[in-house]
Amino acid sequence: MKVIVAKRAGFCFGVRRAIDIAFDVAKRKKGGVFTFGPLIHNPQVIEKLKEVGVMPVSNLKDLGKRNIQAIIIRTHGIPFQKMQLLSQKKGYEIVDATCPFVKKAQQYAKLLKEEGYQVIILGDKHHPEVKGIISYAGKGSAVVSVESPLRTLRERVGIVVQTTQPIDSLKKLLSRAIEKTKEIKVYNTICNSTRLRLKETEEMADRVDAMVVVGGKNSANTTQLANLSRSLSVPTYHIETSDELKKNWFKGAKTVGITAGASTPDWIINDVKKRVKDIGGSLCYGNP
Amino acid sequence: MKVIVAKRAGFCFGVRRAIDIAFDVAKRKKGGVFTFGPLIHNPQVIEKLKEVGVMPVSNLKDLGKRNIQAIIIRTHGIPFQKMQLLSQKKGYEIVDATCPFVKKAQQYAKLLKEEGYQVIILGDKHHPEVKGIISYAGKGSAVVSVESPLRTLRERVGIVVQTTQPIDSLKKLLSRAIEKTKEIKVYNTICNSTRLRLKETEEMADRVDAMVVVGGKNSANTTQLANLSRSLSVPTYHIETSDELKKNWFKGAKTVGITAGASTPDWIINDVKKRVKDIGGSLCYGNP
Repeated sequence: MKVIVAKRAGFCFGVRRAIDIAFDVAKRKKGGVFTFGPLIHNPQVIEKLKEVGVMPVSNLKDLGKRNIQAIIIRTHGIPFQKMQLLSQKKGYEIVDATCPFVKKAQQYAKLLKEEGYQVIILGDKHHPEVKGIISYAGKGSAVVSVESPLRTLRERVGIVVQTTQPIDSLKKLLSRAIEKTKEIKVYNTICNSTRLRLKETEEMADRVDAMVVVGGKNSANTTQLANLSRSLSVPTYHIETSDELKKNWFKGAKTVGITAGASTPDWIINDVKKRVKDIGGSLCYGNP
Repeated sequence: MKVIVAKRAGFCFGVRRAIDIAFDVAKRKKGGVFTFGPLIHNPQVIEKLKEVGVMPVSNLKDLGKRNIQAIIIRTHGIPFQKMQLLSQKKGYEIVDATCPFVKKAQQYAKLLKEEGYQVIILGDKHHPEVKGIISYAGKGSAVVSVESPLRTLRERVGIVVQTTQPIDSLKKLLSRAIEKTKEIKVYNTICNSTRLRLKETEEMADRVDAMVVVGGKNSANTTQLANLSRSLSVPTYHIETSDELKKNWFKGAKTVGITAGASTPDWIINDVKKRVKDIGGSLCYGNP
């Protein structure tokens, strides 16, 4: 059985940067370091961070009277109201690990609002990145998914996009919106890393008999990869670690593809690769 | 045989306004009135205008040493360099009959240029309206049709649209452009009248056995109606006047649709309607 690992599997620029920041802050502060929400959407990495003393909290109240040395802002960013709240309290450092591409989307939403546009965000309204972006988007703004009905639009519409959305969803939104308004200013804030990873997964799907997608079950971009692979009729398995692998997934498979989200560390991908190869070997009954 | 005439057939706001202006100027000046290019794309109306002394010329040289009292700018507008040239000469009045919606497209092209966008115009590069708009669009601008390949785009692209383009062409352009750039500001300058006329023609095509499209052979929006009707597999005949009607087009037809472009006068549409009905009666051989 042949095992192919996607070249673009694993950490993107923003995730690598955030993890480097977190380890650096942990080293500097020696205790009292918290992330506001999980730093990235990978439970295994979050555990590693806990081991060096970087603890996730979901709101300020959770901190109680603990000694706070630094609060790190997650890669997905946070709403500006929460950022203001954090800034009001003194005695700790705020370290912003928001992915620079997400930051850009926030800034474009703000700019569009200031220019008088009705801001529409293409994405998942429950995702923390989108909750952050929309906080900058002002009155009349809305989050839409590719399926959600488009309510009445104003004459001037500004669009920004959750960085992990597929380009086809943006195309569909543009097609629907241009029928309902006179002016659109759109910033294509889909990050290149997402675009290329989806593209590679699409190409791989053509060549494999089964696809293993590795990454946080709470990771939007990993889920996106799995959905794409499934939509191309390839048996697809979304796992977080090699422990979830099952031998019978690979019976009869000649080629297996492995891809991973932007928040999946190399050590997990390598472990999955090794275990899939082992399974492949055991399925061959002596015929390598 | 039933004959249906589209409710939206004939003069749009911009054409009616231009013709009113031309007759008014002819009345005021009593001679020496010229239009820069044909006022609208309908040869029969141009003939009527000639009868009251409004003569089309294609450039200033054609005027020679004639007595010029007024020059009327055509509905499609003219390049701003030509407007400047006309303004330099004194002794005559310049009357701007550019359609206000075309004027808007020109102004948006200028605005986008001033804001630093690479301006792309969706339309037919040979059409006078588009030649006028692009004169405002600055360096690096280009006219693209829905089929033409998209060369490299800059990071910031501004789009305006020839007022008579179908919305589907704009959707297709947006889908192609958003893959190649980071920011698009698009003004949907397709005029409502065009949009609704195309829509009505599409709906009529479902109900008729033959379609007669009336209007100038040089009229972009009339040609658009004919192309749309043909694309829906309805036998379609684009004529300028009732003289071109042929009896055999309607053999076996139970219902015939008549539509007309934005520059087709009512008297031509009514004449076509009457003649089609007459043909229908003669084909019934006594069975009305």
